[in-house]
Amino acid sequence: SRELFVLTYGALVAQLCKEYEKDEDVNACLDRMGYSIGIRLIDDFLARSAVKKCRSYSETADMIAQVAFKMYLGVTPSVSCNSVTGNEFSLILDKNPLVDFVEELPAERASLCYCNLLCGVIRGALEMVHLAAEVSFLQDRLKGDAVTEIGITFLRKPEDRRHRRN
Amino acid sequence: SRELFVLTYGALVAQLCKEYEKDEDVNACLDRMGYSIGIRLIDDFLARSAVKKCRSYSETADMIAQVAFKMYLGVTPSVSCNSVTGNEFSLILDKNPLVDFVEELPAERASLCYCNLLCGVIRGALEMVHLAAEVSFLQDRLKGDAVTEIGITFLRKPEDRRHRRN
Repeated sequence: SRELFVLTYGALVAQLCKEYEKDEDVNACLDRMGYSIGIRLIDDFLARSAVKKCRSYSETADMIAQVAFKMYLGVTPSVSCNSVTGNEFSLILDKNPLVDFVEELPAERASLCYCNLLCGVIRGALEMVHLAAEVSFLQDRLKGDAVTEIGITFLRKPEDRRHRRN
Repeated sequence: SRELFVLTYGALVAQLCKEYEKDEDVNACLDRMGYSIGIRLIDDFLARSAVKKCRSYSETADMIAQVAFKMYLGVTPSVSCNSVTGNEFSLILDKNPLVDFVEELPAERASLCYCNLLCGVIRGALEMVHLAAEVSFLQDRLKGDAVTEIGITFLRKPEDRRHRRN
């Protein structure tokens, strides 16, 4: 059951909002926390998913969407590739379970990336399989966008040897 | 999958430890947060568990252990009644999934009730079904005890009319 997690996450965000006046600081803190979580969660993910090595960024993005999101959040975002170089992807969520109990962001928190922890988790987990990536929200239904979209930009080429454990 | 929740909870506790020097303040904050979660989680619980009204404190304690803990944490504590007046119960956890990633409390955090959020959740949820209760950790494996034990003391008599929605 996700509800306890979703409400606990809300308590965490609320606590950070108390602590930091600027949305940017809350976002950065959530990202850092997510990163710490991602570098630990990856072992659990690899053990339980029994996934094979991904052979391309595209496969990696699909794995995140279809296996990892499904496993940890119970939803499967759709994936689109956003660049001819094949290293930029979007995960598009019609439904974001993390905001189930959030009606809207308060006016004074208009720049808050409420779910920014997820970006950090993805970034941390990817780093542990030797994939450097930038991860950020490109759209957010909480901010009035039609969907929630997480952008992942892989920073190294697939041929890179460090890609090995991916 | 619970791992993301468990790690996120760890991030929340770590954040509060940064913010508050005294363990008592962290414990109180976790309890307050849990209370806020409990008063919202109860609707989800009642809707999804489809439980009938409990007719005694004993039934209520069993419900918390066998249905709620199972639903939200995936474990089933054993229940014991600790008083002849029948209003004091213990939930005894051999395994506490919330501490899966915690090896031990740091020496300077010896009074931390790491999982104190759970006490608040139980207290808040019970209050919404018109049952006042005190909830606290009586034993904690993180502190070297043999088991983890949550004590629940119901503060009103079962005959009380306010017991109705329980």
